[in-house]
Amino acid sequence: MTRLAGEFVAIQREASLPADAVDVARLGTTDAVGAMLAALDEPVVRVVADAVAPMQGRPEARVLLGHRRTTMDLAALVDATAAHALDVDDYAFANHPSAVLVPVLLACGGAVRATGRDLVAAYVAGYEVWSDLMGREPDHLHSRGWHPTALFGPIGAAAAAASLLGLDARRAAHAIGLAASHAGGTMGNFGSMAKPYHAGKAAQAGVFAARLAAAGMTSTADVLEGERGLMRTVSPQGRVDLSTPPAYASYERIRKQRLNIKKYPTVGASQRVIDSVLAQVAATRIDVDAIERVEPQVSEKHAAVMPYHSASRPEEAKFSLEFAVACALLHGRVGLEQLTVEAIAQPRLQALMRKVHVITTDRYDPDYPVAAPFDFATITFADGSRVTTPPVKRATGHADLPLTVRQLEAKFLDCAVFGGIERPEGRRLFDLLQRLPEWTTEDLGRLQVTVAEEAVP
Amino acid sequence: MTRLAGEFVAIQREASLPADAVDVARLGTTDAVGAMLAALDEPVVRVVADAVAPMQGRPEARVLLGHRRTTMDLAALVDATAAHALDVDDYAFANHPSAVLVPVLLACGGAVRATGRDLVAAYVAGYEVWSDLMGREPDHLHSRGWHPTALFGPIGAAAAAASLLGLDARRAAHAIGLAASHAGGTMGNFGSMAKPYHAGKAAQAGVFAARLAAAGMTSTADVLEGERGLMRTVSPQGRVDLSTPPAYASYERIRKQRLNIKKYPTVGASQRVIDSVLAQVAATRIDVDAIERVEPQVSEKHAAVMPYHSASRPEEAKFSLEFAVACALLHGRVGLEQLTVEAIAQPRLQALMRKVHVITTDRYDPDYPVAAPFDFATITFADGSRVTTPPVKRATGHADLPLTVRQLEAKFLDCAVFGGIERPEGRRLFDLLQRLPEWTTEDLGRLQVTVAEEAVP
Repeated sequence: MTRLAGEFVAIQREASLPADAVDVARLGTTDAVGAMLAALDEPVVRVVADAVAPMQGRPEARVLLGHRRTTMDLAALVDATAAHALDVDDYAFANHPSAVLVPVLLACGGAVRATGRDLVAAYVAGYEVWSDLMGREPDHLHSRGWHPTALFGPIGAAAAAASLLGLDARRAAHAIGLAASHAGGTMGNFGSMAKPYHAGKAAQAGVFAARLAAAGMTSTADVLEGERGLMRTVSPQGRVDLSTPPAYASYERIRKQRLNIKKYPTVGASQRVIDSVLAQVAATRIDVDAIERVEPQVSEKHAAVMPYHSASRPEEAKFSLEFAVACALLHGRVGLEQLTVEAIAQPRLQALMRKVHVITTDRYDPDYPVAAPFDFATITFADGSRVTTPPVKRATGHADLPLTVRQLEAKFLDCAVFGGIERPEGRRLFDLLQRLPEWTTEDLGRLQVTVAEEAVP
Repeated sequence: MTRLAGEFVAIQREASLPADAVDVARLGTTDAVGAMLAALDEPVVRVVADAVAPMQGRPEARVLLGHRRTTMDLAALVDATAAHALDVDDYAFANHPSAVLVPVLLACGGAVRATGRDLVAAYVAGYEVWSDLMGREPDHLHSRGWHPTALFGPIGAAAAAASLLGLDARRAAHAIGLAASHAGGTMGNFGSMAKPYHAGKAAQAGVFAARLAAAGMTSTADVLEGERGLMRTVSPQGRVDLSTPPAYASYERIRKQRLNIKKYPTVGASQRVIDSVLAQVAATRIDVDAIERVEPQVSEKHAAVMPYHSASRPEEAKFSLEFAVACALLHGRVGLEQLTVEAIAQPRLQALMRKVHVITTDRYDPDYPVAAPFDFATITFADGSRVTTPPVKRATGHADLPLTVRQLEAKFLDCAVFGGIERPEGRRLFDLLQRLPEWTTEDLGRLQVTVAEEAVP
């Protein structure tokens, strides 16, 4: 498996990629850069950039699309921490692929003067190798305590970095094997800056492992699948499948699983109810002051990840269905500008949040095992009248219901503006990213933001 | 636990240390520097130093006691990889504490102009926090696949680095918590350069985590002991003890467990038989050419870690009881100069190795559960006469039977000479290290080797 992963990375650099795999890479890159821009002013991003700055590494790669430069691995660390900082980045196979992979692309791609083709190939290599590992484990890594993005992210990052750094099959396998020694990070570190740092350290470790392998460092040829290798060691019940050969070459995983893009900057579990409420708001005028009670209905599993019933900080509001529903009703949108301390503190919003009471169901969608068959909300007004918002089976942005280009652009611009980037500049970056597969070696250099120095750490 | 570890690190920086704890720190520092010097010319050390060199970090710390400088974390990476490269470094609580901790001391200590007192305090902090974690797990981490040094090493390193960087209790706890996200690395990566790299990455991660915490990065307050924290996640059977309060302040662990120093540069399991054979060689003349058969007896568990019955490479010979016994008989010593490809290939040695047949016993020493009550060898000569070498219960260098200062110096000089350092220079370094607890802020700077530039990568 380790060896085959290395071969795949080396071979597919030259292979022709299916169009739908290329589309995933473009989508993930665009959305992750947006997520990164939104986080330019986040405390965790400033902290990690501050910690890294005095190390003054060789100026190989840009930090956060700005003017500062450092080593590829440290740039990947800062950028990936930023991409995951606000939890607005995409997800697939229960991991956050683009937050880890795209910063690796930016860091290594810039250093080696990559074309768009090179970047897409590296993204696809990282995605396939990473998602193949996740697909082998039938049990729930989260419930054992693992943070899957921290666990397998280093390996996806190593595959992407090995692709861009031009490692041959043997060295790419060593890069992946060395990255396996960086697999780690538990859910116990959620709720602190360590959560986005997990994406950062995954990206950093992957780049570092690829550099070590390029210099001649070796790992064991079967460290993923071996008797005392990674997959058995972390497997919750030892039921991990180590016999099915990887189907990298068919690009089956990336074509089927694709990416889920968050339309709203709140937890994935809240997205369907927000869609439902916003659809109602768009269809009929709702007198917010006349509302007496709102009852959103979600699955028990989804309710469990939204424990903040009276949120005051953005980190809580992102995991609060009460906030999501009240915000959608009051503002007719749920964007990053609604997720500031001041916006959350508004008395009208807080009063409305107190009228929201979550109802749970233990019925589940067989194709989406943590979600109810559909989500919706019931609104009761002071006069006793009731409205039931339309049932939503897939959130807008889910892989089965992709965002339109205009919706993706709207989210991207929201992110850019939240991060202090002017709208025209944001538009330029978005258009550039949409052309990713056709980039020449000059284009990655054009993905640079022109903002006041202080806005980009 | 995470919080208490942070408090301990901050408090004990100023506390007065028991003399026997100070002795352990001096011993470990001396032996690890020796191990590092021995490895100056090892391929893995050149590779990791080569990989790191082009990153050109800020010149905060010396690499391998030479003239090159880089960031603290990268210097710690290279030095710790070197300290573990030849597997001659010390061990305790089933980990390799000094190979990880001492490079952190050298890297951070130099940058902050530490005194010997500061270095000793940092060593003790790292040792206690690390060994406390190991002591909580009743089951066998190795058999689950974990490499304990890679798993808990980052946390010990973070405690040591936090001590030297002067972090307060809160930030030290964050450093430890962030290092918990770097816990990982499996036995599956043994047999490649990844084994010594595990010590390197542990040291690097610990320094890096301390830097991040110094800059304001946070982790979760209970990431070690929490429901989905590190200790439960990696525990083979979930029987980990998370309720006993840590007894850091009594320095119980470091005073009881101390360090086991390898007198011979071969696997720990071979040390007692070597002692026994060398004692016999010293007491009576043995006619090697008249030997027909040699039967060393060790426990089944010890025999299992020495699988190379006909070794030709040094990596194999280190894990070959046949080599150890033949080498002791033929040369009257087992040193690094006997562990080169050329020395191992000598026909007389190889012929003697073929006469060695390992006998195993399933009887175990209750105080040393993987070892037989004692080890010895039976030598049969061509004339039918037999000699049984004296039974050895504790190898010279084991914590219960420490090396004398002269024995320690002899090993240190062997290491230095093997690494290309002249004997007088080695003696100067040894004497300097023996004075460690009394060092002024100038002394760490004096721990620099003067060798040709090409000898130190």
